[in-house]
Amino acid sequence: MIARPEPLTRAAFQPFGEVLETAGRKSATINQGYAQKFADLARVETPAGRQAQLSVYRSQPVSLPFLLQELECHPLASQAFFPLHSRPFPVVVAPAGEPPRPTAVRVFMTNGRQGVNLHPGVWHHWQLSLDRESDYLVIDCEGAGANLRQHRLEGELWLAA
Amino acid sequence: MIARPEPLTRAAFQPFGEVLETAGRKSATINQGYAQKFADLARVETPAGRQAQLSVYRSQPVSLPFLLQELECHPLASQAFFPLHSRPFPVVVAPAGEPPRPTAVRVFMTNGRQGVNLHPGVWHHWQLSLDRESDYLVIDCEGAGANLRQHRLEGELWLAA
Repeated sequence: MIARPEPLTRAAFQPFGEVLETAGRKSATINQGYAQKFADLARVETPAGRQAQLSVYRSQPVSLPFLLQELECHPLASQAFFPLHSRPFPVVVAPAGEPPRPTAVRVFMTNGRQGVNLHPGVWHHWQLSLDRESDYLVIDCEGAGANLRQHRLEGELWLAA
Repeated sequence: MIARPEPLTRAAFQPFGEVLETAGRKSATINQGYAQKFADLARVETPAGRQAQLSVYRSQPVSLPFLLQELECHPLASQAFFPLHSRPFPVVVAPAGEPPRPTAVRVFMTNGRQGVNLHPGVWHHWQLSLDRESDYLVIDCEGAGANLRQHRLEGELWLAA
């Protein structure tokens, strides 16, 4: 099976999480007129009594086609990836709930000015990058223990260009 | 009075918050060897029952010297600024607690690869940018009501180059 990317839009991504982007969002003028604030693009969700943390992931590029073997999810907390670069990258997801079949997997390609915030429980592949080493700011809760589920996909699902 | 920037280092900034940077930080290998995770560079602090939010601030540059007139602080929550650009910018802070005198104000200049996470209650000027329009990813709690204090500085404090 082959999974081909579709463009990342807020409407299409709505079942999986928020798209972090300023395009098409309203802003407020703050800081004596020196700034536009695009507020509340996404909410960070953590379990009661646990705070979110900020991390940086430095990822090496993969080559396409790339075999998607395993998905994971974090049932207790959201997870946001914001690129510290301006190149498109694929976001591989499947709906929260039962471990997904390969046919349920969707791939969205960012436009270079977008990040994502995954809702708790949304299945996803670990963050893929293209072309070159890429840094991301990650906002989540520690992913160990009860906040990590993993699922090996049936058959062969290839991410194509 | 004139405030001159000093380089932003984790040691010097420790009373005010965390420096978000990978330099000099340990990382773990994750994602089948495809990524280095610089985990937990900072904790997001929010009041019980309130979640953090992700926003983008798009700020216009100021010219130096710039008159620093007012500081603010958020007693209930941390506030992180991560640049979505790679140019130095000044971070103007004063210790948490009583409204500060101008002599307590310190200015740190980032190196282009650093963000900051301000501890709750740390006084700061609204985010300043230099040279050109600059975007920042901001992780905080809504700053209104009991989570916002403002203080007009006595005299004239100029931020110099």
